[in-house]
Amino acid sequence: MFLLNVFEIIGTVAFAVSGALVGMQKKLDLFGIVTLAVVTAIGGGIFRDLFIGNTPPTAFMQPKYFLISVGAALCTFICYSKIYKSISIIKNVMLLFDAIGLGVFTALGANIAINHNFDNFFIVVCMGLISGVGGGMIRDILVRDIPLILIKDIYAVASIVGGTVFYYSHSYVSSSLGLYLCFFITFTLRLISIKYNFNLPTTKETRYHM
Amino acid sequence: MFLLNVFEIIGTVAFAVSGALVGMQKKLDLFGIVTLAVVTAIGGGIFRDLFIGNTPPTAFMQPKYFLISVGAALCTFICYSKIYKSISIIKNVMLLFDAIGLGVFTALGANIAINHNFDNFFIVVCMGLISGVGGGMIRDILVRDIPLILIKDIYAVASIVGGTVFYYSHSYVSSSLGLYLCFFITFTLRLISIKYNFNLPTTKETRYHM
Amino acid sequence: MFLLNVFEIIGTVAFAVSGALVGMQKKLDLFGIVTLAVVTAIGGGIFRDLFIGNTPPTAFMQPKYFLISVGAALCTFICYSKIYKSISIIKNVMLLFDAIGLGVFTALGANIAINHNFDNFFIVVCMGLISGVGGGMIRDILVRDIPLILIKDIYAVASIVGGTVFYYSHSYVSSSLGLYLCFFITFTLRLISIKYNFNLPTTKETRYHM
Repeated sequence: MFLLNVFEIIGTVAFAVSGALVGMQKKLDLFGIVTLAVVTAIGGGIFRDLFIGNTPPTAFMQPKYFLISVGAALCTFICYSKIYKSISIIKNVMLLFDAIGLGVFTALGANIAINHNFDNFFIVVCMGLISGVGGGMIRDILVRDIPLILIKDIYAVASIVGGTVFYYSHSYVSSSLGLYLCFFITFTLRLISIKYNFNLPTTKETRYHM
Repeated sequence: MFLLNVFEIIGTVAFAVSGALVGMQKKLDLFGIVTLAVVTAIGGGIFRDLFIGNTPPTAFMQPKYFLISVGAALCTFICYSKIYKSISIIKNVMLLFDAIGLGVFTALGANIAINHNFDNFFIVVCMGLISGVGGGMIRDILVRDIPLILIKDIYAVASIVGGTVFYYSHSYVSSSLGLYLCFFITFTLRLISIKYNFNLPTTKETRYHM
Repeated sequence: MFLLNVFEIIGTVAFAVSGALVGMQKKLDLFGIVTLAVVTAIGGGIFRDLFIGNTPPTAFMQPKYFLISVGAALCTFICYSKIYKSISIIKNVMLLFDAIGLGVFTALGANIAINHNFDNFFIVVCMGLISGVGGGMIRDILVRDIPLILIKDIYAVASIVGGTVFYYSHSYVSSSLGLYLCFFITFTLRLISIKYNFNLPTTKETRYHM
């Protein structure tokens, strides 16, 4: 399906850019930056394929995801010196691309679960969640950050809400509309959460003071 | 089997509580605490299912493990302010619940290997070990601690001894008695080790001084 | 095939030694050192088996890899006090054994992909890469180092070049010669990179200064 391919390319590029930006923040060399971008972009899909028993994972059978990730990482690296203004701008751009990837892969993961006839609310949501958060978790673990999923209020929750909407809408609306809805809801919830977190950083630090 | 269900619930609650307590020590917010609890409680079983080729893993097909983990995490969070006295008490409680989870999941993992007709000493012990230590390893990696399995003398060893006893007893005793034996031996060895480590913290630090 | 067994033993010993040396640098106790050695030695192969759908992974069906890893870790631990001179020598020895393991497991992984009839350039290279880098990545994550694959210029690249040579040579030369070629090229590229990095440490630190 054409739309699925477009979604896959958008999600792959978005996560590759987020991985490359994190790599540059951590001052990795160019090989490290590209590696981190690739792992972030294909990691969630590999987990999802393992969990549904689709081996070898698609990302190892078709080089296109690898090549797109490498291209996106190189473009990010080249543009970096031009767009770079401050560390906080880079961080916000990273969070934006991470949110796009989260929304796109949640929709793709939930859709794949339905296509594999796992017509069960819980596994549809789980596959959306794992596709959406897997790549970012590996990215954060590799560079020794605590994963976003543990420190951001609405991260897993955005993906779970998006997957829930996808599951309950897929009997009533076309598959394309379901994908758009799931992406839009996940992405919007995450963006709202990012904005909220930026406004209230200090409250959060002290909320569970020990 | 009724006993298996009871074991699964006890192990899930125990690991969820240990994950929630670690999350609170690390000052995660409530969503992070619940996420860490869920990942700790279901992580070992997911690894085990992947390794025996049981896809999708049971934890994604049945929401009960997820719901139990969320409930246990919320209870831990609510009780926390009441039971909280000092950081060392919290840490001991965490180690106790981790030890219960280690014992229960070692027994369940070894039992599943036998039920899948992998009647080979090594794989029975391996599946007990992976079920037992997997969730805790993911928990510790996510919050950037060195996993307990690497820093505690008797952690993997407790699980290996328990799995060995299960394997050699399962031809002679009932499945229930085997599960109890395996749990009891793993848990007791681990408790003895916790007590020993608390008494000799300084020796350990300097043992391999460089 | 005899050569495959020899390769497997060499690779297992090399990665186990690298894991044990990292464990000693991190001042783990003997159980932690042995655990880290075992995980490093069998981790890449387990990932590879999961990805090609070979469950349970070979490392859980045959205890020999486990026993070899434990033996290598104990020997490393015993010899350590005798060979130990300075932290930088230990680090170089670790990198050398890691490079041997990288070369051997790249060759074995690429070979297994061909033997499973995945006669596709990309997946042969991917399986070589995952077998080669997987164990070391787990080792570095467990002790909270940023994985070598992200900070060393020629690490994944060495494995990718080796796997490429294996793929394009396997129609023309014997399987044995292909394995030797792949090992030799991966190992040599990695060694050259280690030497290069040791000579230019400061340039690297400041290259992407922010």
